[in-house]
Amino acid sequence: MSLVDEIIVPCCAIGLLAAFAQFLIIRKISLTPNGQDLSKSLTSGDAPEKLVPEIYAKIMDGAIQFIKVEYAICCLFCVLFSGVIYGLVSWGTKSHTQGALTAGAFLTGAFTSMLCGFLGMMIATFSNARTTLACAHKGYTEGFNTAFRGGSVMGYALCSLGVFVLWVLLTFYRKVYPEADDWEILFDCAAGYGLGGSTVAMFGRVGGGIYTKAADVGADLVGKVVAGLDEDDPNNPATIADNVGDNVGDIAGMGADLFGSFAESTCAALVIAAAAVEGSNNTLSAAGWDAMLFPVAISAAGIVICILCGFFATNISPVKVEADIEKVLKIQMVLTAILMLPVIYYLAVLLLPEHFRLEGVRLTESGHQAKIHGSPFKAFICATMGCVGGLIIGLVTEYFTSHSFIPTRELASACKFGTAVNIIQGLALGYKSCIVPVFVLSSAIFVSFQLCDLYGIALAALGMLATLSCGLTIDGFGPISDNAGGIAEMALFNPEVRRRTDALDAAGNTTAAIGKGFAIGSAALVSLALYGAFVIRLRVKTGVNILEPTTFAFLIIGCMIPYWFAALTMKSVGKAAGEMVAEVQRQFSMKDSKGKTLLTGSTELKPDSKTCIQISTQASIREMVAPACLVILSPLAAGTFFGIQAAFGLLTGSLGSSVQLAISMSNSGGAWDNCKKFIKNGFSDDVELRYTKNPQTEEEKKAAPKAKEAHDAAVQGDTVGDPFKDTSGPALNIVMKLQAIVSLVFAAYFAAINHGHGLIQVQ
Amino acid sequence: MSLVDEIIVPCCAIGLLAAFAQFLIIRKISLTPNGQDLSKSLTSGDAPEKLVPEIYAKIMDGAIQFIKVEYAICCLFCVLFSGVIYGLVSWGTKSHTQGALTAGAFLTGAFTSMLCGFLGMMIATFSNARTTLACAHKGYTEGFNTAFRGGSVMGYALCSLGVFVLWVLLTFYRKVYPEADDWEILFDCAAGYGLGGSTVAMFGRVGGGIYTKAADVGADLVGKVVAGLDEDDPNNPATIADNVGDNVGDIAGMGADLFGSFAESTCAALVIAAAAVEGSNNTLSAAGWDAMLFPVAISAAGIVICILCGFFATNISPVKVEADIEKVLKIQMVLTAILMLPVIYYLAVLLLPEHFRLEGVRLTESGHQAKIHGSPFKAFICATMGCVGGLIIGLVTEYFTSHSFIPTRELASACKFGTAVNIIQGLALGYKSCIVPVFVLSSAIFVSFQLCDLYGIALAALGMLATLSCGLTIDGFGPISDNAGGIAEMALFNPEVRRRTDALDAAGNTTAAIGKGFAIGSAALVSLALYGAFVIRLRVKTGVNILEPTTFAFLIIGCMIPYWFAALTMKSVGKAAGEMVAEVQRQFSMKDSKGKTLLTGSTELKPDSKTCIQISTQASIREMVAPACLVILSPLAAGTFFGIQAAFGLLTGSLGSSVQLAISMSNSGGAWDNCKKFIKNGFSDDVELRYTKNPQTEEEKKAAPKAKEAHDAAVQGDTVGDPFKDTSGPALNIVMKLQAIVSLVFAAYFAAINHGHGLIQVQ
Repeated sequence: MSLVDEIIVPCCAIGLLAAFAQFLIIRKISLTPNGQDLSKSLTSGDAPEKLVPEIYAKIMDGAIQFIKVEYAICCLFCVLFSGVIYGLVSWGTKSHTQGALTAGAFLTGAFTSMLCGFLGMMIATFSNARTTLACAHKGYTEGFNTAFRGGSVMGYALCSLGVFVLWVLLTFYRKVYPEADDWEILFDCAAGYGLGGSTVAMFGRVGGGIYTKAADVGADLVGKVVAGLDEDDPNNPATIADNVGDNVGDIAGMGADLFGSFAESTCAALVIAAAAVEGSNNTLSAAGWDAMLFPVAISAAGIVICILCGFFATNISPVKVEADIEKVLKIQMVLTAILMLPVIYYLAVLLLPEHFRLEGVRLTESGHQAKIHGSPFKAFICATMGCVGGLIIGLVTEYFTSHSFIPTRELASACKFGTAVNIIQGLALGYKSCIVPVFVLSSAIFVSFQLCDLYGIALAALGMLATLSCGLTIDGFGPISDNAGGIAEMALFNPEVRRRTDALDAAGNTTAAIGKGFAIGSAALVSLALYGAFVIRLRVKTGVNILEPTTFAFLIIGCMIPYWFAALTMKSVGKAAGEMVAEVQRQFSMKDSKGKTLLTGSTELKPDSKTCIQISTQASIREMVAPACLVILSPLAAGTFFGIQAAFGLLTGSLGSSVQLAISMSNSGGAWDNCKKFIKNGFSDDVELRYTKNPQTEEEKKAAPKAKEAHDAAVQGDTVGDPFKDTSGPALNIVMKLQAIVSLVFAAYFAAINHGHGLIQVQ
Repeated sequence: MSLVDEIIVPCCAIGLLAAFAQFLIIRKISLTPNGQDLSKSLTSGDAPEKLVPEIYAKIMDGAIQFIKVEYAICCLFCVLFSGVIYGLVSWGTKSHTQGALTAGAFLTGAFTSMLCGFLGMMIATFSNARTTLACAHKGYTEGFNTAFRGGSVMGYALCSLGVFVLWVLLTFYRKVYPEADDWEILFDCAAGYGLGGSTVAMFGRVGGGIYTKAADVGADLVGKVVAGLDEDDPNNPATIADNVGDNVGDIAGMGADLFGSFAESTCAALVIAAAAVEGSNNTLSAAGWDAMLFPVAISAAGIVICILCGFFATNISPVKVEADIEKVLKIQMVLTAILMLPVIYYLAVLLLPEHFRLEGVRLTESGHQAKIHGSPFKAFICATMGCVGGLIIGLVTEYFTSHSFIPTRELASACKFGTAVNIIQGLALGYKSCIVPVFVLSSAIFVSFQLCDLYGIALAALGMLATLSCGLTIDGFGPISDNAGGIAEMALFNPEVRRRTDALDAAGNTTAAIGKGFAIGSAALVSLALYGAFVIRLRVKTGVNILEPTTFAFLIIGCMIPYWFAALTMKSVGKAAGEMVAEVQRQFSMKDSKGKTLLTGSTELKPDSKTCIQISTQASIREMVAPACLVILSPLAAGTFFGIQAAFGLLTGSLGSSVQLAISMSNSGGAWDNCKKFIKNGFSDDVELRYTKNPQTEEEKKAAPKAKEAHDAAVQGDTVGDPFKDTSGPALNIVMKLQAIVSLVFAAYFAAINHGHGLIQVQ
């Protein structure tokens, strides 16, 4: 084992052990109340506790049912696609070994991603009911810790597995290509790992996103607007599907997305680092395996840092009161980011040679390809740009979407003028929220590009993702708390329990928005790095001249792809939500033998959540195929028919356009959601916005009609925002990454068709 | 006078004469009913006729009041900015003559644009009441003809003036630079004309757009949703402002926009054509003035073609019944486009040399700048790509926004599920509507770029704009009919009159959508041509490598600019509409001495439309400055501080992103508008969508509650769509064009700062 192996393997082992330890702690909370210390319990009698296992089982069943169908389709697609990869890569490289290894890496990546998604979803579902019980019996500290631990099991396990499997894969491939001169080929093949991860992420994000929002939008429309029910009312048969959706969309989907980002940025860094530099022996591959695997070491070290910080949150400075929750989560993010920096510096000095040369994509004044001089310090700065940039993007996202700040409060005021003004202002808010993140991103791109060319971009992406375990923990925390709230409502717990889970959920919502900011920022950097790796891989010496007929024509098409994609996914949500509404209305209109319906207190009828789950499952499975194919096939078609110049244009356009659309959609959606919470929970100082469901006092009664109107407008905005922030917006991350990695993996194939000019020869 | 002059001058003269003749025909309709033949009149007594002059005067006053303030600010800005131009261009080119001529061309362009906008607005306001009267007294034929003539006065006058003034300018500048070798400088200076036109267009589009939608959204919100009034109810004080808005936004704004497109595409073509080709004498400038002015000749010939076709609509095959209206308008568009083609071919053969060489921006395989071989036939194909492409984009736009086709009908069905689903589906529709236009645009770009490099792109843009007079006529037709309807309502005409004006308005709406498609398509081509002219002007030999740190960083920023711009404009509309609502509510809550309000039949109170007009005027003037500065200053800042590479990135990103956002916003808005019309006017076969204000039959009463809900959802969608389709969407055309022409005009200045590396030297 070389030095870098001695860093990577123990870190992964620690991560897996930590995940297992957290799981054991969660498991201690029993779902059946027998023999528990209920001294601090808020429940009178054990009626709610009896309902919990039943609801828990329903959510678990629904989630497993969905994931089975989804993964069956994923597996089928991946097996078929690995055949395509094998065929085209073998043809392009004229080497069956390369084809087979690439396809093998692809399948490894895909199955690792599925395994991680499955584990994440199971642990989240496992933790949600336990969080409710912890909130009910033990208060904030235990409630918070349970949800946080649930998230961290997923965070630690996913990162450790991802890094470890990649390490095994690389170690194995190194046996096939032991010579440093062949590493260029080795890492080319390994790029399949990123493609596998990203392909599954596409299905997870889109399928899960459609599932969760079809259920959520459907439940909202019927429940809140039509029948005046509360969110998560036990009579609404769509609420179980909504809760299942949180697990399959926000947990499995988000996990797969970030797993994909991590795998791809590592692959991009490796491919770029392995590219031979003409006329120089001073390359990273010449410096040896340790230098090459520096990017993997960053990710591995990040796991340990996050575990240490996580210990701080659950044990050293635990949550005591409501106000602590958001603070503790935010401290986590900032702390991990700060602690990462010296570690990255140390690793860079330890693993990288003092000076090294890299192949660049930018040109010198005379129009020749620039050769880049790298150093550990430069590499450190690049990673730092990403790490700090991610934090800033996250905080800006919070500013625009949290109701503690002006933008969302202004949006709430706009609700007084009705739905239309709320929508107009919300869209404007989303557009506006692009400004700072884009400046941060372009600064990060500019600096790291200047210092280490595209290797720098890949390092910046890795720097942003170094604290991934922490990010995933917090991302998992949100939906677990959200589910816990749903269970509290459905199991008819004391309202105080719901208040506690809501407090967790609210903090989770804010931090989830931060996580989305991270995900988008890193996706932009990752796809630029992949794009660069693609260009380097093709040995294009003249740069990418955007003013070529083919390139510019495809730039415009590339800019359009995210819109096409968003149209498909949003339409799917609208359609599936319509089906859900029809089903719920059917159930509400059914009468029992006494002529009573579900809503008028029938004792015979039960809400039939199974049918709702089936509708969501079928709709999402049916609707996820078209958008996924659009993204995967578009670069393939461009490269096959119009050559590599077309692929360049497509990637440039898609990257530029996706970033904006993803940020604006996520933030508009987040702001609408929190705007609704702001009004609904009566946080406002403005009397006209202080909504109360059953007005009591004279003042409340006077304000009620206006407040009701504002509240309804806010609910409509939230419903529009649902597919924005949880279906189309975040899936756009994957659009840009996936198109770039498809291009990278098929680079040799594109280059082999008519010398890269495509089947329809143009020049 | 040379050959080309003999083509241009008579064409312009014919255009101006035709405009004047049409004006004389309209003027025949007297606003006071005395002595008119009222045998076919629909009005009983002359009560409505008495109200007409009063309403007419209010609209006219409001429009003039606004345009005065707007143009005062425009003038101030233009004078100041011409100083900046003079200073920076003189410094960059080291020639005070060039600085002065560029500034002069800028001022000429700006004042021509203002003059055209003013004339257009006056004639539209002049025609609207006359259209109402024609509809009331004479029926469809005269009603249609009056509105059509009103539009054509603007169309013919604007195009003729635009071409003629440019011709005068060029002829004058030729006296300063008589030698063909100096024409590169000459046309460089002339590019200021395009900048002037576009700067005014920016103010016109943004100011007018905010004005019209603040009034419209405000009037809608109060009138329709809050108080249950009809659109254009005479008691709603905001309706006059709404009608004024149609004139200042849709007429003056749209006219200035398209005037800018025409001026800029011509300037781009001239600059590219005049660029000296190394090692070749076989250039267009060597071939003489006739060959150089070929692009101007196309525009001039287009005017005459449009006049001939217009004669067909008003006299040869006039509108007889309601169904004819849309048909006649569509025939106009197709006919002019078809007739243009042989004319363009003839002009190309007549004016262009058999073979000529052009400076290209694309690179050869070996990385050198390609030299392009042009021919009249190639030039003809390029213009044809634009002309036909524009038509296809227009028809696709119609498909997505007219309620005769599936997309808008589906949207109407979605209204059954409420506002949120309507918004989600409407946004998805807009996104989806980008697909075909983008493919058409990229095909046009690809083919013309292949054939004649960027000169081809400029010709494609000119081809698309060749039928501009016709496009403007139809664009003007819409708001005139819309206003006519408003006047019919406010003057309490017989409902049949309103039905007639509504039929005109509906056809106008559809064709206005087509016009917007043209405007966006041509703007994309124009800005690419300008971008290319900028690159050629800078004599960049290595192409635009997008994978440079500065370029890529600014690409992302460029992609963000349209979002920033849209955020500013949409927020302004929301804010101004809020002020309008507050004012109307204040007026509605006022009580007269008998305790009655405006809505409960007060005879003492009168709706105070003046204050509403003031609110709209002030809001639009206040809010138009920031977005305009953003667009004009961003390329200046990029070029000044980060050099030409930054400007390249900015233009690339902004172009790609603006196209999508403009198309999707315009079409979402158009579809929502027509979806509302579809439901409101009971066009649907679906009982649940058949809205009737006062349900009579049993069936109607049963369907009423659901239909009311769908109707309200549609109204909310329309309100969201208002700023989409009339403020932010169309103004994005100008964003891309204006940024490109600013870069072109300041090219020499950028190149002079640290050899094009900017003040913050990076490389």
